[in-house]
Amino acid sequence: MAAHVPASALQLRSLVKPDQTVMLFLETVDVPQPGADEVLVRIEAAPINPSDLGLLLAGADVTAAVSTGPADRPVVTAPLPDAAMRAAQARVGVPMPVGNEGAGTVVAAGSSPAATVLLGKTVAVAAGAMYSEYRCVPAALCLELPEGTPAADGASCFVNPMTALGMVETMRQEGHAALVHTAAASNLGQMLNRLCLADQIPLVNVVRRDEHEDLLRSAGASYVCNSTSPTFMTDLTAAVTATSATLAFDATGGGKLASQILTCMEAAAMASAGSYSRYGSAVHKQVYIYGSLDRGPTELTRTYGMAWGVGGWLLTPFLQKIGPEEAARLRRRVAAELATTFASSYANQVSLTGALRLDAITAYARQATGSKYLIIPSR
Amino acid sequence: MAAHVPASALQLRSLVKPDQTVMLFLETVDVPQPGADEVLVRIEAAPINPSDLGLLLAGADVTAAVSTGPADRPVVTAPLPDAAMRAAQARVGVPMPVGNEGAGTVVAAGSSPAATVLLGKTVAVAAGAMYSEYRCVPAALCLELPEGTPAADGASCFVNPMTALGMVETMRQEGHAALVHTAAASNLGQMLNRLCLADQIPLVNVVRRDEHEDLLRSAGASYVCNSTSPTFMTDLTAAVTATSATLAFDATGGGKLASQILTCMEAAAMASAGSYSRYGSAVHKQVYIYGSLDRGPTELTRTYGMAWGVGGWLLTPFLQKIGPEEAARLRRRVAAELATTFASSYANQVSLTGALRLDAITAYARQATGSKYLIIPSR
Repeated sequence: MAAHVPASALQLRSLVKPDQTVMLFLETVDVPQPGADEVLVRIEAAPINPSDLGLLLAGADVTAAVSTGPADRPVVTAPLPDAAMRAAQARVGVPMPVGNEGAGTVVAAGSSPAATVLLGKTVAVAAGAMYSEYRCVPAALCLELPEGTPAADGASCFVNPMTALGMVETMRQEGHAALVHTAAASNLGQMLNRLCLADQIPLVNVVRRDEHEDLLRSAGASYVCNSTSPTFMTDLTAAVTATSATLAFDATGGGKLASQILTCMEAAAMASAGSYSRYGSAVHKQVYIYGSLDRGPTELTRTYGMAWGVGGWLLTPFLQKIGPEEAARLRRRVAAELATTFASSYANQVSLTGALRLDAITAYARQATGSKYLIIPSR
Repeated sequence: MAAHVPASALQLRSLVKPDQTVMLFLETVDVPQPGADEVLVRIEAAPINPSDLGLLLAGADVTAAVSTGPADRPVVTAPLPDAAMRAAQARVGVPMPVGNEGAGTVVAAGSSPAATVLLGKTVAVAAGAMYSEYRCVPAALCLELPEGTPAADGASCFVNPMTALGMVETMRQEGHAALVHTAAASNLGQMLNRLCLADQIPLVNVVRRDEHEDLLRSAGASYVCNSTSPTFMTDLTAAVTATSATLAFDATGGGKLASQILTCMEAAAMASAGSYSRYGSAVHKQVYIYGSLDRGPTELTRTYGMAWGVGGWLLTPFLQKIGPEEAARLRRRVAAELATTFASSYANQVSLTGALRLDAITAYARQATGSKYLIIPSR
């Protein structure tokens, strides 16, 4: 192992305790010696994605969080609502490392050629526990970034890009011709917009704020509907009619948005069907919920016939379903278009300690569009 | 045409009018001469299924219905709520005949051998417009009933039996091992219970009343859960765990029942999974809504991970999906087990005029278990 690697380093942990609180803290862990097929990565950038927050915060009420401990080793404690505590039963007492993906420099490598060749290279990895100063992972999991790519530019090259590609692939596999996407001005949404423009897929972007409407239009989006507008249902029906979109990916989850989308899709289908059917249109209309920006219940009014579905959508089972070869093809595309189609941007960069500041936690817990956080564990 | 067939006869019609009401009445229509491949059936029994009510009542508020006209030609008018009127736009001004299925005697036949052979036979048909004194249909649509079968016993040999078989086939095709069924003491539910017993498929019956629990248990059901019981969630979780049911068919639609079923399925899956997963279990859990006993919104609390789906299920697209050969195989089974597995029972028998009595309308509109209506148009 190279001399500049310390024997121990910091790792962010999330611990749900029996007293119905979650505790966030930095643990000192041994830095392992890589096995033959492994490499040790100094993590230089790891994003806080919405998909990290469930594990990190455990559904806690972060507005009631308190911070104790010294400034360089903060310990944050926040209470869990009853439902969150029930959902967290299986992890009570287990301090969980966090962080789905990140990027950094390979500072030590095992003896195998696959590992050795990565020494000194900047790589991206999606192996969990990435909110760590150092992370030892199988060389096979590393995506080598093009020479000169800053770690920050490669930190988000798995979750969002593969999710955007997964949405488009799901659309093709299930026989739809166009997409609706909500929370469309998010990093993922902007990425999906660029991907759909590149692949000439009609995309209906649903946003909640005027400035996000402008942002997407100036990025080339043809269809942007604002769900806070009094004309939203009319606007969305028109966009769905123009694009023939019968599949939506919804990041909000709770509330009426999924049901509104199905209602507009049904209106579009019935307008083109011509004759009355007592069971509604025969066109299958699908909404996949992949996020939970609104944690409240999903309310379905079922005024869209019988040919509809709502369900959860998650990247990992999708990748298992398409198999390793197809997944590798998608990853190669991400690497090739990392600076263009799949570029990410961050409003805030913080250290591991900074990620545990109360103002930071309340900010990223809100998941507001345009306020994405990047953790720099090496800072 | 045989001499005893009149030149005109009565047919029940449902007309949504621009003034946001539905009008139910008996129309005098010409009795057609059968074409070469057709037969004329004197309809002697036609059930009022939940699937008929959408077309018949158009979502009207039947508690506000009024009846005018002479006793032998009642005209019933009921107001439509706004949402029902929007959904009925395409049928405004079109007097719709009603009645998905029924049975009766072939009283005239066209010249083709397939038609002639049916003359004098009792047949079942699912061709719509069955709330009529006479109905002319293609001979190929007729299911000849075993000699001596009363029309009443063959009247429901399509919708409920094929739906029960469709549920079981869907379970097999989508890789599930057991079923949950709600409103399980209905005619369809009792049929499904007998079918699952015959085919050794574990079935969890969900009911709302103690006497329905007794009814199903005395019919051999192993798992019956009462959704009004304070221990419902515990009971259902235990039954779902015992059966490994990951597919449910829900007749209620509105409210929390679909979500409760998914919650119990997830609890069962997590209990057997062993380790904590932040995204919930990897087992896909599905609820198909095939009815709307509760017309209110479906409320999904989404505390069951990401591997779940809720959607509409309808018999016709299912039959199209499996194709004519497989559908014919299912129909042969229905004919063979009409007096056993697929037997129906009716609490009330009414004439066409009787079906338009206000007390009858409010009764069948309630769709209460154990109060099924059979129309005897020939009465």
